[in-house]
Amino acid sequence: MARPKAAGRDLREACIAEALKIIETDGVEQLSLREISRRLGVSHQAPYKHFASRDHILAEIVRQAFDAFAAELDGGPHTGDARADMSAMGEAYLRYARAHPLQYRLMFGTPLPNPAEHPDMMHSARHAFALLHDCIGALARQTGQSLADETRVLDALYVWATLHGMASMPQTSAVGTLGLPEGLLQALTGHGMQRMGSAMDAAYPPQE
Amino acid sequence: MARPKAAGRDLREACIAEALKIIETDGVEQLSLREISRRLGVSHQAPYKHFASRDHILAEIVRQAFDAFAAELDGGPHTGDARADMSAMGEAYLRYARAHPLQYRLMFGTPLPNPAEHPDMMHSARHAFALLHDCIGALARQTGQSLADETRVLDALYVWATLHGMASMPQTSAVGTLGLPEGLLQALTGHGMQRMGSAMDAAYPPQE
Repeated sequence: MARPKAAGRDLREACIAEALKIIETDGVEQLSLREISRRLGVSHQAPYKHFASRDHILAEIVRQAFDAFAAELDGGPHTGDARADMSAMGEAYLRYARAHPLQYRLMFGTPLPNPAEHPDMMHSARHAFALLHDCIGALARQTGQSLADETRVLDALYVWATLHGMASMPQTSAVGTLGLPEGLLQALTGHGMQRMGSAMDAAYPPQE
Repeated sequence: MARPKAAGRDLREACIAEALKIIETDGVEQLSLREISRRLGVSHQAPYKHFASRDHILAEIVRQAFDAFAAELDGGPHTGDARADMSAMGEAYLRYARAHPLQYRLMFGTPLPNPAEHPDMMHSARHAFALLHDCIGALARQTGQSLADETRVLDALYVWATLHGMASMPQTSAVGTLGLPEGLLQALTGHGMQRMGSAMDAAYPPQE
């Protein structure tokens, strides 16, 4: 099927869209600027106007994923109650992972391009983590806990690890060996969020 | 380099050892009985005496991994205090994941052969999960909590998800973008175990 060749800004977007298709169908290992240009029917040199290397386009895709992920995490409703906001953020995390499995896998399941060489990607990843870290900070202030900085970072890592486990464990095929009753895995999200919530309540006891 | 050809039981073990090497260096996608026989210098038909297909040797490797994993989980010390035993099991889980990253990835990071066609593998996977589930049962009995069966399964899944997250999140390259202070990720294990412990304490309050 012939299709019009893209140029300029359009070509940049077309490269990104085609790269996502390659990653989705053939895996990230198959991504190359040569394959992108072949599929788009443009010269091998054309993508280099926008991306210095295969890693640069991958870093841009990952950056966009982190930005969309952060927007979801930060999507509100921002009630001013740090506990409710934390819970909303946890649900947003799991919702993003369910809705965008490819992007989730790119951010957390495959090797990233070297962060030092791709500062925009690194900045976006740090921003997503900072949202979670700030949420812990708000919880500490609201509950009057004056914890060491390190403890707050560790709590952000603990919450992240738990959410990552709840997002990824149900995707393992090991879970399929267990013959679990129907619907039980769906119930894990609410149950696990409640358990994690009580861990955080114990660390940041709600003020009477 | 010439090496003596293996036969019988030895050949079976040699096939498994070679399969593990292929998975480790080239990835599980490259595993085939043909490649195993080529590397071992035996006829293409030889591995079929022991394994009906590539999936059968993979299922056997995964079965052995689940058995070793279960042995680690069940390795004790079995104090009789369900809370301490649960904590020891969690530490054993993370220890296994750290010590055997290839086996951990095979069990939980890559698609498994169809469990229905590989009942031994399925049995071993279920046994590992049953150890965790039994541990929750002991905790419920010790603390006098009469919870629905479903809640105990959900708690086993919650604990598994949290441990899986703590084992796998530090391996993501996303964590490398954050510029965390040295040693902090090492501290996550103890910190996260403590937080998860307080979630379980809230659900199964220690008796006075």
